[in-house]
Amino acid sequence: MKNFNFYAPTEMFFGKGEIKNLPNLISRYGKNVLLCYGGGSIKRNGIYDSIHKLLKDCTIIELSGIEPNPRIETVERGIKLCREHNIDVVLAAGGGSTIDCAKVVAAGVCYEGDAWNIVTNPSKIKAALPLVTILTLAATGSEMDPYAVISNMKTNEKIGTESQYILPKASILDPEYLYTVPKYQTAAGTADIMSHVIENYFSTEIDTFVQDKISEGLLEACIKYCPVALEDPENYEARANLMWASSLALNGLTGCGKNQAWSCHPIEHELSAFYDITHGVGLAIITPRWMRYILNDKTVDKFVQYGENVFHIQNTGDKFTVANEAIDKTEQFFKDCKIPMTLKELNIDETHFEKMAEDAVKFGGLQYAYVPLNKNDVINILKESL
Amino acid sequence: MKNFNFYAPTEMFFGKGEIKNLPNLISRYGKNVLLCYGGGSIKRNGIYDSIHKLLKDCTIIELSGIEPNPRIETVERGIKLCREHNIDVVLAAGGGSTIDCAKVVAAGVCYEGDAWNIVTNPSKIKAALPLVTILTLAATGSEMDPYAVISNMKTNEKIGTESQYILPKASILDPEYLYTVPKYQTAAGTADIMSHVIENYFSTEIDTFVQDKISEGLLEACIKYCPVALEDPENYEARANLMWASSLALNGLTGCGKNQAWSCHPIEHELSAFYDITHGVGLAIITPRWMRYILNDKTVDKFVQYGENVFHIQNTGDKFTVANEAIDKTEQFFKDCKIPMTLKELNIDETHFEKMAEDAVKFGGLQYAYVPLNKNDVINILKESL
Repeated sequence: MKNFNFYAPTEMFFGKGEIKNLPNLISRYGKNVLLCYGGGSIKRNGIYDSIHKLLKDCTIIELSGIEPNPRIETVERGIKLCREHNIDVVLAAGGGSTIDCAKVVAAGVCYEGDAWNIVTNPSKIKAALPLVTILTLAATGSEMDPYAVISNMKTNEKIGTESQYILPKASILDPEYLYTVPKYQTAAGTADIMSHVIENYFSTEIDTFVQDKISEGLLEACIKYCPVALEDPENYEARANLMWASSLALNGLTGCGKNQAWSCHPIEHELSAFYDITHGVGLAIITPRWMRYILNDKTVDKFVQYGENVFHIQNTGDKFTVANEAIDKTEQFFKDCKIPMTLKELNIDETHFEKMAEDAVKFGGLQYAYVPLNKNDVINILKESL
Repeated sequence: MKNFNFYAPTEMFFGKGEIKNLPNLISRYGKNVLLCYGGGSIKRNGIYDSIHKLLKDCTIIELSGIEPNPRIETVERGIKLCREHNIDVVLAAGGGSTIDCAKVVAAGVCYEGDAWNIVTNPSKIKAALPLVTILTLAATGSEMDPYAVISNMKTNEKIGTESQYILPKASILDPEYLYTVPKYQTAAGTADIMSHVIENYFSTEIDTFVQDKISEGLLEACIKYCPVALEDPENYEARANLMWASSLALNGLTGCGKNQAWSCHPIEHELSAFYDITHGVGLAIITPRWMRYILNDKTVDKFVQYGENVFHIQNTGDKFTVANEAIDKTEQFFKDCKIPMTLKELNIDETHFEKMAEDAVKFGGLQYAYVPLNKNDVINILKESL
């Protein structure tokens, strides 16, 4: 087990009606609020009205229309609003994209230069406005983590930044807010949660038993409850377990004591940067192909552990049989959730594979991944995903 | 799943040599340090010297001799030292008892009345000095939780208090510090970790899948690694997993979404209050007896889940067979760890059972436990433990 720091100070308010805490939370920081949200689903499901009612004593300025892969231009727009209106606290109501955008807005206000700099160089973040989030999608874990991913469509770059300063002060997680999440987004969000766990789980550290058990439990929760939520969108138990799994998958619990760079996320980021696809869908497509690509004598034991403990596959003696069955079951699970499982279905062909592979290695640190990947490896994995 | 708040803001520095962060951590708060420790094991294992070397620019005042069940008189002594020496930050180096004592010292400095008041009435805690801990025993979870248990031997009371103000700001967890922990304390500490998980696990909430999976994983870690640590005290993997399990067992992860009062801890607190026994040993003795006592048609399914997922017992159809085997295995595990498993071995007889049972119900909220317990129930469980 490698040395690690674990720091997850976000105050989590979990359950039905927990939005009632919003006035108290916001009043800790001031009265001028930047409300960040996306395409308007919060207007349809009533969260927008609740916020305005609860914060009637505050001045609310709005940054709306945040994109599913949030753009640097939107971040810049938010920073400008904060400066013009002397904003005290940023409130993000939405999924990971909205929260990510709000994080970089909060940090950007305290940074004098070009906001893209704090995306490409996280060490430039030295302060941020306080951030409170209201989560409406179980997926990215952004509600309890120090990460944000921002896209620059001009340069086809989608880059992650990280800073303790952008950790949300508090997050409100009401599973009932997930009742109106469409099936496609429910499935893609679950794939995102699972990918966060899988990226951390497959590691050369073999003595991280506690972390691995937590990981296996979160994966089992996704496998158990995603189909339930798809079948019965208002099933509280399913939504609650998926929502809590989303936060725990990426708050440090599954990755601490392990230092590897991730494998599938850097590749998927290129897909999103070039084709603006749904992040979780890209991950679902890449993950089983990556698994098959890296399965070998050195990695097979980890796949056996994964197969036995997550999918409860009987180990009849042949390790590779168990490993391949585990990978097949991973792919089949995503298929059963109705996720399109080929790039072709997303109208993606080989055109940009060279450049995407180059950038994935360059920006994603794939040479430090569980099984180090070079440009050719990435091209091969992408071709397998067609 | 019940609504919950999850708040675990302690910064955890985990791994070999992480004590190097101490000067930075302490300097956030000031230069006058109250160093709290117990019987002097930190002098034998070098931690004491490391602290003095690393904090050579600080003024260190010492509160030593903190008891295994820390007394209110010791807390009062610490508060007096803080006031006399204008202490800025409290540093606890030890196990849960030392940390618990340091917590109430830190809070007591900011309270004008009798320190026992903030033990019996946690709402009186309105502020505390910052607390940093260096953990030397994997057991209580005090390094990452808002609880402290203090004993008043005059009145035979051992009472827990709770406040967010006494959450440690940072904790240093170096598994190598556990290498010199005696076998008896290693086993008792593991029993304490397991009891924290078990108290939360057995709950009437049946939809807390994520919490239950984490609980099962932590229990499996204890069962796997305690025997290894007993056999091979310098096994880093075993010590690291036990140490991290200790923090996660009681930082909110296993209990969130569940609201039941605990069952075995209130009973054990009476044993410690009357006989000053090792907390984890008392818990190991009580737990399997409590399990047998509450096993019935309503609780059997939870015991089956426990048996299947923690001890991997094959379910051949009869629920009670699985449940009883799980309880037997729990008891056998503690026996195998060489924990004395009867009260007689600790020279405890029935003399005080009436009063103990009365106080356990009065102070421990046993009427709100998983299976509500009254005075007679407690007496019966204690008699079964003789």
